[in-house]
Amino acid sequence: MTGLMTPHTLSGVKLLNLDHVGIVVSDLDAAIDTYRVRYRVEPLYRETVDSEGVEQAMIPVGASFVQLLRPLKAETPIGRFLSKIGEGLHHVAYTVTSIDEAVAHLSVTGVELVDLEPRIGARGHRSVFVRPDEVVGTLVELVELNDV
Amino acid sequence: MTGLMTPHTLSGVKLLNLDHVGIVVSDLDAAIDTYRVRYRVEPLYRETVDSEGVEQAMIPVGASFVQLLRPLKAETPIGRFLSKIGEGLHHVAYTVTSIDEAVAHLSVTGVELVDLEPRIGARGHRSVFVRPDEVVGTLVELVELNDV
Repeated sequence: MTGLMTPHTLSGVKLLNLDHVGIVVSDLDAAIDTYRVRYRVEPLYRETVDSEGVEQAMIPVGASFVQLLRPLKAETPIGRFLSKIGEGLHHVAYTVTSIDEAVAHLSVTGVELVDLEPRIGARGHRSVFVRPDEVVGTLVELVELNDV
Repeated sequence: MTGLMTPHTLSGVKLLNLDHVGIVVSDLDAAIDTYRVRYRVEPLYRETVDSEGVEQAMIPVGASFVQLLRPLKAETPIGRFLSKIGEGLHHVAYTVTSIDEAVAHLSVTGVELVDLEPRIGARGHRSVFVRPDEVVGTLVELVELNDV
């Protein structure tokens, strides 16, 4: 495990940028309108991600995105979040150089991942979700951008 | 109200960048260590903000910060969040050109602010908090950077 702490083997793990904050909403059109009128920001695109059971809008804000997530059905992670907790902040996503290196590092250091294999998420990027734990109770997504 | 929708009077409202995500933690040292070991990021600085009743660490990630917030006492907004909800995501902060213009715009359009007057928050910047509502259930902070 000591070897994992050397800069070389950790090279893919460092967080590069705050890619997006994921926010669960029940009405995507209303949420987009609110951001437009209140804060003068517009979605770059909308897409349906069937594998996640969500429709989402990505709103660029500086170097990051606000990701608005509307569940397409109740029996999905986002659907359960909406019915149990309500609208609001769901996760924070960071870019990393390499998902594979990040997964290897986190697994060996005992960090629990939601995914056994990276998923293909928003914008076709590979990503994994890291479970919240007792130290940092935040759902974190790591994203490898496939266009950089 | 129509006049408010012209680009000129809205010039100070547009979100410029995702400045930080605020995350409530109960043990600041442990949280900093977790981010260091897990994600190879380090706080740029720590500070105590007596007016908010918090000790906080600001961890730069790309063009944004992760703000770790530890309440100094129970009877503060962050202390109540920790005892009622637990550790986790608390708010998202965006930079704006002018807090005064943002407050004027939001007030006239009926958006409820937590603050009647801008507060002096982290890093000495002026900011206001915008209450979550039924459309976008997210606590939002708007920050005017005084060094740009």
